[in-house]
Amino acid sequence: MGPGPVNAHPRVLRAMSADLLGQFDPEMTSYMNEVMALYRPIFGTENQWTLLVDGTARAGIEAALVSLVAPGDTVLVVNFGRFGLLLSEILQRIGAKIETVEAPWGETVPLDAIEAAIQRTGPALVASIHGDTSTTMAQPLDGFGDLCARAGALSYVDATATIGGMEIATDRWGVDVVSGGLQKCLGGPSGSAPITISQRAAAYIQRRKHVEQGIRRDDIEDGEGPLIGSNYFDLAMIMDYWSDKRLNHHTEATTMLYGARECARIMLAEGLDARYARHRAAGGAMTAGLRAMGLSLFGDDRHRMTNVTAVHIPDGIDGETVRRKMREHFEIEIGTAFGPLAGKVWRIGAMGYNARKHKVLLTLAALEAVLMGEGLRLPAGEGVTAALAAWEASQ
Amino acid sequence: MGPGPVNAHPRVLRAMSADLLGQFDPEMTSYMNEVMALYRPIFGTENQWTLLVDGTARAGIEAALVSLVAPGDTVLVVNFGRFGLLLSEILQRIGAKIETVEAPWGETVPLDAIEAAIQRTGPALVASIHGDTSTTMAQPLDGFGDLCARAGALSYVDATATIGGMEIATDRWGVDVVSGGLQKCLGGPSGSAPITISQRAAAYIQRRKHVEQGIRRDDIEDGEGPLIGSNYFDLAMIMDYWSDKRLNHHTEATTMLYGARECARIMLAEGLDARYARHRAAGGAMTAGLRAMGLSLFGDDRHRMTNVTAVHIPDGIDGETVRRKMREHFEIEIGTAFGPLAGKVWRIGAMGYNARKHKVLLTLAALEAVLMGEGLRLPAGEGVTAALAAWEASQ
Repeated sequence: MGPGPVNAHPRVLRAMSADLLGQFDPEMTSYMNEVMALYRPIFGTENQWTLLVDGTARAGIEAALVSLVAPGDTVLVVNFGRFGLLLSEILQRIGAKIETVEAPWGETVPLDAIEAAIQRTGPALVASIHGDTSTTMAQPLDGFGDLCARAGALSYVDATATIGGMEIATDRWGVDVVSGGLQKCLGGPSGSAPITISQRAAAYIQRRKHVEQGIRRDDIEDGEGPLIGSNYFDLAMIMDYWSDKRLNHHTEATTMLYGARECARIMLAEGLDARYARHRAAGGAMTAGLRAMGLSLFGDDRHRMTNVTAVHIPDGIDGETVRRKMREHFEIEIGTAFGPLAGKVWRIGAMGYNARKHKVLLTLAALEAVLMGEGLRLPAGEGVTAALAAWEASQ
Repeated sequence: MGPGPVNAHPRVLRAMSADLLGQFDPEMTSYMNEVMALYRPIFGTENQWTLLVDGTARAGIEAALVSLVAPGDTVLVVNFGRFGLLLSEILQRIGAKIETVEAPWGETVPLDAIEAAIQRTGPALVASIHGDTSTTMAQPLDGFGDLCARAGALSYVDATATIGGMEIATDRWGVDVVSGGLQKCLGGPSGSAPITISQRAAAYIQRRKHVEQGIRRDDIEDGEGPLIGSNYFDLAMIMDYWSDKRLNHHTEATTMLYGARECARIMLAEGLDARYARHRAAGGAMTAGLRAMGLSLFGDDRHRMTNVTAVHIPDGIDGETVRRKMREHFEIEIGTAFGPLAGKVWRIGAMGYNARKHKVLLTLAALEAVLMGEGLRLPAGEGVTAALAAWEASQ
């Protein structure tokens, strides 16, 4: 019950035990095409280029940024937590000129501040996190992509911590590239990064195409744009691999693809609205329960992610001792924190397969027992009761 | 029965269906430590830094090169096939000054030619493929690393296509960094890249360390060397993640780690020598069988990889039709070829779980039937008989 990775759905784990296929076997390439179709509704998009990057969610971020940004390009980063800082760290390696528009940890960045920063900096790309688990805040994104497009900028959003749990509306937001990971609300393991790419972004990336010397073909031409700074993360080549050209790049991570496919099948069978409602119900029960225990939450209530909650560690309580006892006595993991919040808050998730009534209630019951054992006075029994009431009110 | 990916060992697939753990759960970090210990004998090394890069084998190559090479550095590439070209392609993105020492496809590069090229070019790094599946040749590496070290150069070897099937002797070769993948002779899926790093290379990489702003700690200092050009592939940060510091980087790909661990456990239980002998026996049976069918092999017999064989497509036979019939009638995949060999040879593997007597014999029987169906005259029955005799002679 941390901020991810969390327990995988058992069906995903079973799907991953299927034997491998050759990477150009028609059965394998049909699964690749299925994955493209399955992830379009999950990303809220009609984008043709909706596929997997073979690596963890961070690989998806780097693939997006290194393919969308050339050295010297100005990039505006919307920064409201650790993962906003990560965007800048990756962009620094690419050689981008980095500008930021910021909010304090626990808040999000108002759209008009982003607009003003775009006017001020004239970026080629604007990049934001959707849900930053370091602060548990979700950046509002309606209107974001259109704002960028009007200023002639491409836009990128990292949705690792929200995809599968909160609505991703790529097309409605007007965002060019969105990437995610399996290990949070999608209920799979880390190691595959779904990504979607608009036609506009794909056209930009294709202009940077440079086919490897060992596999050049007469029917595929190089573009005239600057070379993409990574071979592994070159989305131009990865798109050719996922297209009918099937131009060889890396060897697709077959087992991870089986897992990603099953995550999506489970999600679409549940229904997008039902799934988001389940996460809202679990998050609402968690926050109600924590507050009824007398604990105080970190961050702006209006922009709280539904799938992870940061709660202040009470005075006189050692956060790591509580985490250890939760794990040793109850086999339940809750999260620590980064940077300015380290030692100050726990982050308690209810993501994917774990966004379920009984898991929220059991976590609260365990936390109450551990805190009482540590000598904290709290209104015994009220956390679970309030959480159950909140869950039932949401149904 | 292609050049990889091939069928995974069933035990590996079962291990990958275990549920996930939190990335800093003591059970998880103990598995990470186990993986480090398990891969040392597989790499033939005592190197402390023996770990996994979370991506396909190509990710391991890029992690090694981007961490070992700064823009402007001279790198000497030992090039005898498509994957030698890939090394240059990746290095071009890094901004290296690339020099090459080459052999025609089907041959390997003599050590004295490498020595002369080192003298001529004064490289900071010398990089080679061990077994290049595009040509099925294995570069002899005894003495290679020492040659580089004497000239003050670091050395890198990609062992993707040989690890688990042919001896990897990192320490005896004196090579600084060796990387691989699971999807060939290790009998696992693509998506995790084992890598080993010498103390000398680790010291160089640590001098380029730059800890992310969101997770800086007082006890970890940045180095003074040039920033590594990728965040995801920054081996300095990945080493900190795999060390007792457990400094957060990406979220370890748990399921792939379970798979990598099981690949290694199976290999060590079989025994290194027994495993290499099994691959030699399978490769010897395959080459004997193909020759007894009247087919001719591509490449230098003295440097043939034991786990994959390139065989000329006979005159008048359409290679892709044969591959399709092998798959449709027999559910057996054999490999196509790249670049100058495209349409000229098939590449037939016997790797990992597929390096077994019955699989070699069944593949030859199927190939004979398909070729006869295509109108080729060949000495019926002799391929399988010769392969079986070769297998038995090797036991």
